[in-house]
Amino acid sequence: MKVAVLGTGMVGRSLAGRLSELGHEVAVGTREVTATLARTGPDAHGTAPYGVWAQDHPDVTLANFTEVATSAELVVNATSGDVSMSTLNAVGETTLAGKILLDISNPLDFSEGFPPKLFVKDTDSLGERIQAAFPQLKVVKALNTLTASLMVNPAALADGDHSVFVCGNDSEAKQTVVELLASFGHTDIIDLGDITNARGTEMYLGIWTRLMAALGTSMFNVKVVR
Amino acid sequence: MKVAVLGTGMVGRSLAGRLSELGHEVAVGTREVTATLARTGPDAHGTAPYGVWAQDHPDVTLANFTEVATSAELVVNATSGDVSMSTLNAVGETTLAGKILLDISNPLDFSEGFPPKLFVKDTDSLGERIQAAFPQLKVVKALNTLTASLMVNPAALADGDHSVFVCGNDSEAKQTVVELLASFGHTDIIDLGDITNARGTEMYLGIWTRLMAALGTSMFNVKVVR
Repeated sequence: MKVAVLGTGMVGRSLAGRLSELGHEVAVGTREVTATLARTGPDAHGTAPYGVWAQDHPDVTLANFTEVATSAELVVNATSGDVSMSTLNAVGETTLAGKILLDISNPLDFSEGFPPKLFVKDTDSLGERIQAAFPQLKVVKALNTLTASLMVNPAALADGDHSVFVCGNDSEAKQTVVELLASFGHTDIIDLGDITNARGTEMYLGIWTRLMAALGTSMFNVKVVR
Repeated sequence: MKVAVLGTGMVGRSLAGRLSELGHEVAVGTREVTATLARTGPDAHGTAPYGVWAQDHPDVTLANFTEVATSAELVVNATSGDVSMSTLNAVGETTLAGKILLDISNPLDFSEGFPPKLFVKDTDSLGERIQAAFPQLKVVKALNTLTASLMVNPAALADGDHSVFVCGNDSEAKQTVVELLASFGHTDIIDLGDITNARGTEMYLGIWTRLMAALGTSMFNVKVVR
C-alpha cells in the first residue's frame, strides 16, 4: 500500500519505519523539506534530527505534505494534536477526499506543563473535528493510547498481550486499519464504533500520562480483561 | 473497622455487603431512613428496593448520613457524583473532620443520555472538589474505574488479574484503603499520587462507558501491562 505519514517526530518515524519494513511504499510529509533536513541538533523532546534517522531508512522518502498525500491510499496523522488541523489544511481538502486517515493525534495542551490538559474533550474530540472539517476523508482513530514503539511493535511488551482501540464512521476504512494493526502484531483490537468514540480514547490520555509518571516508563499499555 | 457507607444503590450495597462479610461493622447512610425503607418497587436503574437487600444482610444497619458517619473510622462515598457534594454537606464538616473518605463517585452527567458527559474534568475533578470542600477529610479516590461487583470481588474476573488505582494526599489514609482493597482480593493496586490524579481516573470513564457499550457487558476491567 502507498502510505503517507504526516509528521517527522517519534510517532511519524516509528510508523514510517515499521510500514516500510512490512513492504509498504512510505513517504513522510513535512512542512518544508529543506528545513527538516537542515536540522542538526536534537529537538525540544530530545529527538535526534530527522536526517540521521533518514540515513538508516533509505526506502522512506521525504516530501512536503501535499506531495506525499497526493499519491497515498492511506494517510497517517502523526503530528502533535496542536498542529494536526493546520497540517491537514496544508495538505488540502481536495487531496484528502476519499482517502483513509489513520489519526494517532491527541489534543494535548502542555502550556501549563505536565501532565498536559486536553484542548478538546468530553463533548467533542480532535478525531471528530478532523472528520467534520474533511467530510470526504475516512477518519479512523487508533494507536493514540500507547507509546510510539509499542504502536508498531506490540510484541515488545508481554508478547503483545494488550489492547488497542479503533473508531470511525467508515467500516471499510476501519477494516483496512484493523488489518494494518494486526500486521504490526496487535492481537486485541477493539472496535468502539463511530468517530464520536474518539472522546473516550483521547480522554484516556488523562490516566495514561499519570500512569507514565507513576510507573516511571512509557513502556506500558492496558489489556481489557473480559 | 467501623465503616459508614453513604448511598443505598448498587455500589453502596456491594461495598456494605462485602465489608460486612469481611467482619467490619458496617452502617449504610441514607437521607431519610423511612423513605428508603418505604420503597417497594425497583428504582430508575431497575435496582430492587433497599429493604429487600437489607433482609439478606441483617448485620448491616441503616441510619441517616450524619448518624452513620459519626462513629465511623472510614466513610465510603458510594453516592452518584451529582449528589456527592450535597450528601457530604448533609453529613457535615465537623463530623467528617479527621476521617478517611474512600471516594468511589464519578462526575457523570446523564442529562443528554448515554454515554454520559462529565460535569467536571481535566483541570479539576470531583475528588479534588470534595477534598477542597472538606480540608480535614482524608480523601482517597479509588474503585471508580470498574463495576460494583468487581470492586469488591475482583476474583470473579480472570482470577483477579486486573488493576485498580488509588490517589490521595494522605499517605496513611491511602495505605488503609490499599489494605482494604487487598482484602477484597485486588492484587494490582497502583498508587498514582496525590488527589489531583483523580482527573485521570475520572476521565477514564469516557472510555469505560464506551467499552461497556462495545463489549455489551460491564464485567470487564483493565490490566496495566508493564
